[in-house]
Amino acid sequence: MDITWIAVDWGTSNLRAWAMGPAGPLAQATSDEGMGKLAPAEFEPALLRLISPWLTRPTAVLACGMVGARQGWREAKYRATPCTPVDAAGILHVPTHDPRLTFHIAPGLSQDRPADVMRGEETQVAGVLALHPGFDGVICHPGTHSKWVHVSAGEVVSFQTFMTGELFALLSTQSVLRHGMAEGWDDAAFDAGVADALQSPDKFAARLFSLRAELLLHGLTPAQSRARLSGLLIGIELAGAKPYWLGQRVMLVGAPALAASYTRALGSQGLAPETLDATACTLAGLSRLHSQMSQK
Amino acid sequence: MDITWIAVDWGTSNLRAWAMGPAGPLAQATSDEGMGKLAPAEFEPALLRLISPWLTRPTAVLACGMVGARQGWREAKYRATPCTPVDAAGILHVPTHDPRLTFHIAPGLSQDRPADVMRGEETQVAGVLALHPGFDGVICHPGTHSKWVHVSAGEVVSFQTFMTGELFALLSTQSVLRHGMAEGWDDAAFDAGVADALQSPDKFAARLFSLRAELLLHGLTPAQSRARLSGLLIGIELAGAKPYWLGQRVMLVGAPALAASYTRALGSQGLAPETLDATACTLAGLSRLHSQMSQK
Repeated sequence: MDITWIAVDWGTSNLRAWAMGPAGPLAQATSDEGMGKLAPAEFEPALLRLISPWLTRPTAVLACGMVGARQGWREAKYRATPCTPVDAAGILHVPTHDPRLTFHIAPGLSQDRPADVMRGEETQVAGVLALHPGFDGVICHPGTHSKWVHVSAGEVVSFQTFMTGELFALLSTQSVLRHGMAEGWDDAAFDAGVADALQSPDKFAARLFSLRAELLLHGLTPAQSRARLSGLLIGIELAGAKPYWLGQRVMLVGAPALAASYTRALGSQGLAPETLDATACTLAGLSRLHSQMSQK
Repeated sequence: MDITWIAVDWGTSNLRAWAMGPAGPLAQATSDEGMGKLAPAEFEPALLRLISPWLTRPTAVLACGMVGARQGWREAKYRATPCTPVDAAGILHVPTHDPRLTFHIAPGLSQDRPADVMRGEETQVAGVLALHPGFDGVICHPGTHSKWVHVSAGEVVSFQTFMTGELFALLSTQSVLRHGMAEGWDDAAFDAGVADALQSPDKFAARLFSLRAELLLHGLTPAQSRARLSGLLIGIELAGAKPYWLGQRVMLVGAPALAASYTRALGSQGLAPETLDATACTLAGLSRLHSQMSQK
């Protein structure tokens, strides 16, 4: 294999690496040694466990994501928006013990007011711009901490994060609602949740308890309950993110099932967002940043 | 002691009992054998461990709370609102093995649309009416599942439950926000959270993540973060409960610290609610129901 560099997406839960050749990825490797499990001294060994078969010579490694957080390998200071999503001038070199490694971290972005931060999505935004040159509009990254990013003239103008996915995980597995939740889905219940939250976001905490009461009184099924909860959470997110999506071209970057839910919810508001593969965007963004570094 | 009957408040987490004499409580006993820890066959032994010193002769025991839930000792069917908060005709007799016990459960209330249920608060509502005859207005029970109850002409007209306290517990101890939370308080941060949620309930999930971002970017302190989270949650509850409190006489029935937070939040909207002691209301309600039973 003619490995020219290694791309790394190092999040809270997972570590993913790609051996990159001149024409794109040659091989992929994944482990569960995410940032959340590692002390600073444990990052280099975790990386080597995954990529040492590829290190036949000194190789540049470029990583994005939570590896650059304050609790990560080493803190990569946020770049302040408005700014381009990635910039070779902002990357952080992290010294390593293994002489075969040259390790760099792409920093996240910050926004002063309203206070907000991202780590990883900025690289996906750069990937969207690489895959769709001249894109002007809004990129939505659904997930644990969903992000809406306004992109114009090649820059991140503003963004806003919603704790939607984390609320869903907590409420469906840790709260009193867990007793009435199960795998499965119900489109009508999801749609009702979206519509309800968009119309009455102030009733959010009451609608949550309604799931419990409707289970007890009206036989709401576990699948209906789970889909309605998802709808309520995505609906209140869409209510809050309306200044982002109203009248805009929207791109969704996320896992297929979640992107399908957001597409359905946005469809109820007359939007038809495009969906891009999250991994493809991450790789395109890291590749763009790597080529910028090489041109320096 | 001239024990004429025994009053019991049996919730999810705790079991509390009072030996009642002709003029009121003579003794109190508490254990942590709440409904949540007990299988149906374990309720009678748990009760006897607490009250057997008082059982010098056959004694009537009247209980309210989650003991009557589907997962409790025995299910006491909800009474449907609108109705009086308690009614001797609705109580459930539960057979016991110990011949000294005559055990009854006060049922909760249900509301068909919007679907809602309560178990325990109905007894406190009866207590408010016993302590303030002719009360007409709104009773707020802040807590894990906060309830707003509209009372008129001695009946519960309607009510609505908000999952406020449970959301606070989950977010402050289980979510990403827990890293920036600590005991302590900050009135200004609480007020800002209340105002923000009342004005923009749709931004709820974004404001949650802001707590994290303001910690990282602007040095929000753990005490400020905790107070702002409480303010956001109480604020969005007040936004949703506005049809209940707007222009109404409001009584708060709850723990002192929590009632003080609600008083402060309602004060920002020009209300000056009265606060009643929750235990006093429970005992007054059980006493009223007990005397109704005796008159049957």
